[in-house]
Amino acid sequence: MSWRGILEAYRSFLPVGEKTPVVTLLEGNTPLVFAPRLSRRIAPDAKVYLKCEGLNPTGSFKDRGMTIAISKALERGAKAVICASTGNTSASAAAYAARAGLACFVLLPKGKIARGKLAQALMSGAQVIAVKGNFDAALDLVRGVAEEHPVAVVNSVNPDRIEGQKTAAFEIVDALGEAPHYHFIPVGNAGNITAYWKGYREYKQAGKARRLPRMMGFQAAGAAPVFYDAPVKKPETVATAIRIGNPASWQAAKVALAQSNGLIDIVTDEEILETQLWLAVNEGVFVEPASAASVAGLLKSASRHHHPDCPLAAEVRASLIPASPIIVCTVTGHGLKDPDIVAHHKMKAVTVRATKGAVLEAMGLA
Amino acid sequence: MSWRGILEAYRSFLPVGEKTPVVTLLEGNTPLVFAPRLSRRIAPDAKVYLKCEGLNPTGSFKDRGMTIAISKALERGAKAVICASTGNTSASAAAYAARAGLACFVLLPKGKIARGKLAQALMSGAQVIAVKGNFDAALDLVRGVAEEHPVAVVNSVNPDRIEGQKTAAFEIVDALGEAPHYHFIPVGNAGNITAYWKGYREYKQAGKARRLPRMMGFQAAGAAPVFYDAPVKKPETVATAIRIGNPASWQAAKVALAQSNGLIDIVTDEEILETQLWLAVNEGVFVEPASAASVAGLLKSASRHHHPDCPLAAEVRASLIPASPIIVCTVTGHGLKDPDIVAHHKMKAVTVRATKGAVLEAMGLA
Repeated sequence: MSWRGILEAYRSFLPVGEKTPVVTLLEGNTPLVFAPRLSRRIAPDAKVYLKCEGLNPTGSFKDRGMTIAISKALERGAKAVICASTGNTSASAAAYAARAGLACFVLLPKGKIARGKLAQALMSGAQVIAVKGNFDAALDLVRGVAEEHPVAVVNSVNPDRIEGQKTAAFEIVDALGEAPHYHFIPVGNAGNITAYWKGYREYKQAGKARRLPRMMGFQAAGAAPVFYDAPVKKPETVATAIRIGNPASWQAAKVALAQSNGLIDIVTDEEILETQLWLAVNEGVFVEPASAASVAGLLKSASRHHHPDCPLAAEVRASLIPASPIIVCTVTGHGLKDPDIVAHHKMKAVTVRATKGAVLEAMGLA
Repeated sequence: MSWRGILEAYRSFLPVGEKTPVVTLLEGNTPLVFAPRLSRRIAPDAKVYLKCEGLNPTGSFKDRGMTIAISKALERGAKAVICASTGNTSASAAAYAARAGLACFVLLPKGKIARGKLAQALMSGAQVIAVKGNFDAALDLVRGVAEEHPVAVVNSVNPDRIEGQKTAAFEIVDALGEAPHYHFIPVGNAGNITAYWKGYREYKQAGKARRLPRMMGFQAAGAAPVFYDAPVKKPETVATAIRIGNPASWQAAKVALAQSNGLIDIVTDEEILETQLWLAVNEGVFVEPASAASVAGLLKSASRHHHPDCPLAAEVRASLIPASPIIVCTVTGHGLKDPDIVAHHKMKAVTVRATKGAVLEAMGLA
């Protein structure tokens, strides 16, 4: 049987019935790619895997939640959906709404959306409204509009989104035959860390896994309300997908962190960009900046493990206890989402005349 | 067992041995998405599926060939690889070479590369050389360089590439339980139509399918050497991925067309862009312009079917004989590869102040 999307694959774990229409682009079933060089950087016997969520239909993990949210919205008779977005949610909402035949409104923070994401929402026929404010302001507006008008909110304040997103944890356990020891994940609106934790717990309860991972969440240093335990009025980071100052799933994320004996920490934009480039050059995996936050967090944790005078060292050392730790990092979105990032890395092509001599010289072989 | 990439999945059909290193990003296993609205446009009982190759690791079908080409290059002791590319091949080569620890040189036609593709090659650490000429000139230069220097060519003149790409046909048969009646596909360098036909034939020979599809190839009108049976000196099309005037697999493609009782035809840039937008708005599938050529070709064929005074009508009518045709269109690359295409569609966001009144007015609800 070929893959039929997460709703069919995990139907018994999801809030859907026989009458729920199935709006799918065959999301999920994403690769869990072993990262040999990254593993060696962490510990001699570590096994680090990248859950490559950028290989979902619209290029990010958002599709898992959106197939459920849009299917349920259609079941409830919705004619239109609305969301606030830093870009990935709007790309996903626009695509699934198009497929369902629903109108789609998306509110984006003006000027802070990666080029690819904006193209996606526009191309799928969503009505794109750029708001002169940040994501948090856009989400407030979405809630306000939906209170008065019959449009279904498909942000992760909609619990159907979390339900869909938890299936990534199921897939990881299905692939490894067990839950990992540690799960590293970027934290922006905090829906995904909430969803993974829910997924791991439900799969353990169903007898599919014996253990639960520690959830290791990482925020961008300039947009780290969960880490600082206070909203951030003007969140700033190169990782636009997690540029959020007042996360919708804040409390649920705190529960996940506490229950899993997890950790919330920050990584700088410099660490994020360095890790993004390192992953592409060393593992062949090109992810968007926000996605690199999970791996940057892993590298930070591992380096602290080796420097016991760091304040967090005791906790981090404890977190790397297993002799052969199995670690999964979620990389949430594809590098193609944000092609302009190459400018940050100051990378460009060399231009030459169309002669063999010129090419050989550029190659360093002349 | 979770997916292990095309080399492991179809090992017995591929030119690999026990000692071949496996360089994989878990390519393949891409969704075959049913297209309900497209099906209805074609014929009452038609079933049209989109083979969404943009969900490969680097966002295009090229990864199927590259996992084999790079694995074999490594097995043969190569230290460096080189390719000419309209963008997708270079993105794939750069990623797989990075994973294999090989140096990678890519030659691109200057100024004619979609933004996402260039970002991919640069980020994975390839040495990117923009040549003041078109793809055909770049491919000539690659061949010239490789004759004199120990760099492995990973263009589709390398037969390992075709071997890997044929696995997409295997997956389609595995998913449908049979080969489709018609396979529509964009034709640029003509390697992919060659590969699919090889795959369908080998799978039939192995008893996995009873029939073979008719191969329906479509070129951009401004870059249609196979259709016109003559090289095109200055190929021009908005579909940069198939902007090729002298295809490497030209003869093999002619054989595929002849043996399958297939068809080669052209679609205009206008038809390509119209179809790209239609797919995104109606099926929720956003593909790069070149990918839309297959579906534009299907729509052209179907419209001719309804207009018997068209020169091709007899042949096309014949091609739609089955009462319930099963049709697969390969969509070769993700829409995120070329985000600047929205400019061609003259689409943009509406900007408003961050107030509920302004948002409601933009939504048409004030």
